[in-house]
Order: sequence, then C-alpha cells, then structure tokens
Amino acid sequence: MQILLNEVQYYKNFDELARDVLEMAKESMPDRLIYLTSLTKQQQIILKLSESHPDIRIHEGMEIEVNETVCNRIDFVNNTPLVLEDMSLETNLDNLRAALVAANINSYLGIPIILSNGDTFGTLCAVHTDAMIINKKCVTMLQRIAKLFSYYLDLERLAYRDSLTGLYNRQFLYKYFEEISTTGGALLFLDLDGFKKINDLYGHDTGDLVLREVALRLESFVQTHHGFAVRLGGDEFIVNLVDISNREDIRALADMLLSRLSSWDTQLEAFNLSVSIGIVLYPPEENNNLKVLLKNADNALYRAKANGKNSYQFF
Amino acid sequence: MQILLNEVQYYKNFDELARDVLEMAKESMPDRLIYLTSLTKQQQIILKLSESHPDIRIHEGMEIEVNETVCNRIDFVNNTPLVLEDMSLETNLDNLRAALVAANINSYLGIPIILSNGDTFGTLCAVHTDAMIINKKCVTMLQRIAKLFSYYLDLERLAYRDSLTGLYNRQFLYKYFEEISTTGGALLFLDLDGFKKINDLYGHDTGDLVLREVALRLESFVQTHHGFAVRLGGDEFIVNLVDISNREDIRALADMLLSRLSSWDTQLEAFNLSVSIGIVLYPPEENNNLKVLLKNADNALYRAKANGKNSYQFF
Repeated sequence: MQILLNEVQYYKNFDELARDVLEMAKESMPDRLIYLTSLTKQQQIILKLSESHPDIRIHEGMEIEVNETVCNRIDFVNNTPLVLEDMSLETNLDNLRAALVAANINSYLGIPIILSNGDTFGTLCAVHTDAMIINKKCVTMLQRIAKLFSYYLDLERLAYRDSLTGLYNRQFLYKYFEEISTTGGALLFLDLDGFKKINDLYGHDTGDLVLREVALRLESFVQTHHGFAVRLGGDEFIVNLVDISNREDIRALADMLLSRLSSWDTQLEAFNLSVSIGIVLYPPEENNNLKVLLKNADNALYRAKANGKNSYQFF
Repeated sequence: MQILLNEVQYYKNFDELARDVLEMAKESMPDRLIYLTSLTKQQQIILKLSESHPDIRIHEGMEIEVNETVCNRIDFVNNTPLVLEDMSLETNLDNLRAALVAANINSYLGIPIILSNGDTFGTLCAVHTDAMIINKKCVTMLQRIAKLFSYYLDLERLAYRDSLTGLYNRQFLYKYFEEISTTGGALLFLDLDGFKKINDLYGHDTGDLVLREVALRLESFVQTHHGFAVRLGGDEFIVNLVDISNREDIRALADMLLSRLSSWDTQLEAFNLSVSIGIVLYPPEENNNLKVLLKNADNALYRAKANGKNSYQFF
C-alpha cells in the first residue's frame, strides 16, 4: 500500500517529533544539514530541515522527481544506508550530478525510513557542501533515530487504518471529506452477501480471512483506478472513486467490482458469497456532507439487496 | 488501565530497541549509567542497563517496592524530569536515602516514560556514584529519546489491545493461555442481547458507543476482581477470572455481570439490552487449550441464549 502524501499532514505531533529527530541527529553530526523526506514511486518531498542553510539549496516543501534525487538510490529492500563521502569520486551519478551541483551538496548520508509492514516512508539525510568523512558511529546513530521515528510513523498511520485489513478506516474517510477532497467522485457502499452465514458456521477466524481477501481485492482494484478503499466495520466497505462523474464509467467499474467479489474457491462457493453496492455521486466541492452521502449510498445499497443482491443501485 | 507487567515480554524487538535507547542516551551522557524501568503502583522493575557497573548496585530484572525508589518521586502527571545533582543536599529523601546509599547512587536524572493514553510506562534514568552537574541539554535529549521510545511502546501495546474499546484482544487471550497462564480459573464468554437491533436502527456510531460503554463496565469489573477483559470482536467479550474454582463464587460474579450489563438509559431501554454468558472452568495447568475452552464456553452461551437470554450457563 502506498501512503497518500496528504496523510502525514494529519499525524498528531508530526512537527514536534520531526524537530526532535533532526535535533537528535544534529547532536551526532553537528556540522551537517539534516533533513527528513517522504518518498513515493513518483516523487520526494522535503518535509523538514534542521535549519535553513545559506549555501545548500533545498527547502521545506520542495518536491523532487524520483529520478532526480539521490535518495532514490538507497537500498530500501535491505534497509541499507547510502554513504557518499565525496561526490567528485562517484562515477555512477549520471543525471543526478546536475541536481547535486544545483543543490550544492558534495557529501551525502541517506538513511532509509521503513514502516513495520515494509513500506517505504522516506529518508533521514545528512549533507554538506564539501566532501566529508562519514563516521560509522554516526551512521549507526542516525539508523537508531530513524528506527525509533518509524515506530511513531507506524502508530500515526494506524489511526487511519483498519487493523484487520489494513484498508483505510471510517476516521480517515471523515478526514478525507472534511479536509482533503476537492474533486467530485462516486462513493460506492459495499456490503457482502452471505457473509453472516460464514461467520456463524465457520467462526470469526474464517470470517476474518474472507474480510482480508475482500480487502486485498479492493486494494488491487483501487490501485488501477483513481480512488481508495475503506473498511467501515463488519462486512461493510467503501470504495471512493475520485475525479469521475460519468455514469457509464461508474457502471463499468461497479460491474468489475461485482465480478471480482463473486468468485470464491470451492469451500466458500456454497455460500454464494457476493457483494451488493449502493452508489452515490458527489460534486467537486469542499462541503460534501459525508454523513448524508453515506446515508444515501446505504439507501441505494438497501435497494440492491432487495433486488436480489450481487448487484448495484444508484441513489 | 494498568499494564500487565508480563506484557512487555511479548513486545517484538523490545530488547533491540531498549538497547538503541540506552546507547542514544549514553551518547549524550557518556559518564553515566543509564537504565530503563517499568513502574506500576506496586513496584518498579529494572528492565535494562546500558552496562553492568562495578560500583552501582542495580541489575537487570531487579524488583523494587515503589516506596523504595526515587523514580516514584517523578511528576508523571506533568511529565516533568526529576533532577537530583547531589543527594547529600536533598533534604526530602526520607526513607529513600538508605536505598540510594545501598545502590551507591549520588546523582540522579529520571525521565518519565508516558504512553499516549496517559498511562505511566516507567522511567529512563541516568545515574552516577558521585554528585554530578546535570546539563539541561542532556535532560532535553533524554526527554526526546523517551518520547520516541514511548511511541514504540504504544505501538506494541496496540498489538494486544482492541482498537475500539481498549480492552485486550483475541491475540492477547491466545498469548495468555499459551505463555502466561499457570493458575486455574473461569472463562466467561459474553454476547450482548439485543445489540444487532441497535446497530441496524441507529447505525454503527451508536453501536460503537454501546460497545465502549460495555468495555468500561467490564474494565471496572475486572479491576476489583482478579482477571481481565477481552473483546473478541463484534459484541462478543471474554471475562477471564483467574485463580477461582468455586462455582458459588463464580455464580455470584456472573450475577453481578448480568446486573451491571442490563441497566441502560432511556434511549436504549426499549431494546432490552443485556448479556448472555457461557462459563467454562479450567484447571491450573499450562496446557489448557483455549480453542476448546472457547468452543465449550460458546456452547454454554448458546444454551443461555436459548433459555431466554440475560442469564448464564455453565458448560
């Protein structure tokens, strides 16, 4: 799962903790500029600097394409710091050299910040205008700091994730509509058909496995369509499709969801497990009332259930 | 809620992170002995030392009565470090002086470690055999380290807590029977009567409020009776009463639970919200099979439901 870049804004105490992290790192490497970044497959954002440096040209909020940042060369899979003591001696920098010259960085230490589920969060970096020795003890110290910081990040992320499935939770959905959403879209309210029987007959453990599998399928669905998936609770899910308004497009996507959630292996086949969907469209404005949207979508869902399940209805 | 002292044993990476914390603190105060403790209302446990010190007589695993530890003088409510640079100048040590002399500690810095819900976890301490100046910058540094460490502790605790109610979760219950339980007891399997109607009529938000209130009542119940409460999922809860085997005693406690969970305010009164309980006793041995115990308790619960609800049955 990729972190929504917006997500970090909603972390409690982020600024304060980021400041603590930078000052702890600065304690180990007082002569370096230290900074924290977030890094996705598309871009890097400089989140916080230890100080504004007169000669190093990076600033808070700066966005950098991934192929123009040296942090992208870090081995995140093996959680290995990247140590470049003298850029003039590095022969594999290719197109990065121009970016480093532009920023006036000649030595670089980059520590990966990785979440407990293996996702990349970003980097903790220490840089200097000149070529500099990078002490092993300092690398270890910054790794320790990054590790402790990653626990904070994990904790904050948990507040917006459903613990069973890893999907976003109800709290995130409310945040999204209150503070993030600006484009219009469609809210799809999903309720599994035949789930209660599975829970009653096979117990919660099997029920939980089904919910996790549903979550995986929804997650893979939203990765190729613009939007995100939420578990509201029980066997109720939301798929929020953003920046879409054409009913035919939405129909096609809803059909795809019906089909992806109605094929199950032999053990579960007898239960006719499927999904009913209620759909509500919302306009591109900031004051969409989520409570009303959910109520309307639930209303449409009710009709889908009444119409024989495994189907969708628009509000 | 008080932390079960055993809980910390099940934290992943505790030793590694504790080691990181001590080494980071040592970096700031290289001449001090640094240690981490857990502190409850009854006792303090020394969890980890930066090194074994030839002249300071404390050791890992050491248990200290709270009225014999200077850490208990820390102001946890205001999260304020305690700085004692020279014990010979402290006039309010009273009975603590003997303990400090016995340990050979003459200067002390104690940083409170507090969890995000306000609970006390313990302390991060830096001590010396001699009276020593305690630098303000070092205090700030150790506070930062303690704060980052507390996020790790929060995260690990979350793994054993139900996010909605704060009660222990299913995972903790399994851990308990696999690794902690040595005494016999009684497992009470609770399922609310009339809850589904509330969820269906008033929605999940109201349903969640009811579940939280049930959790508060169970939490207050187990605080005065030896045991703990678990939310299994949905409206299913477990109360595990430890070190009890007399059926009459268990009946009395089950009656108390029935009564505490059947009185609700006017809005909810119409739903006849109450609880049904299935009870299974288990002997004092380490190989109790929780899966079987739960199945048997669920069986008894089924009979309690069939017998008109708001009642309990033994397996």
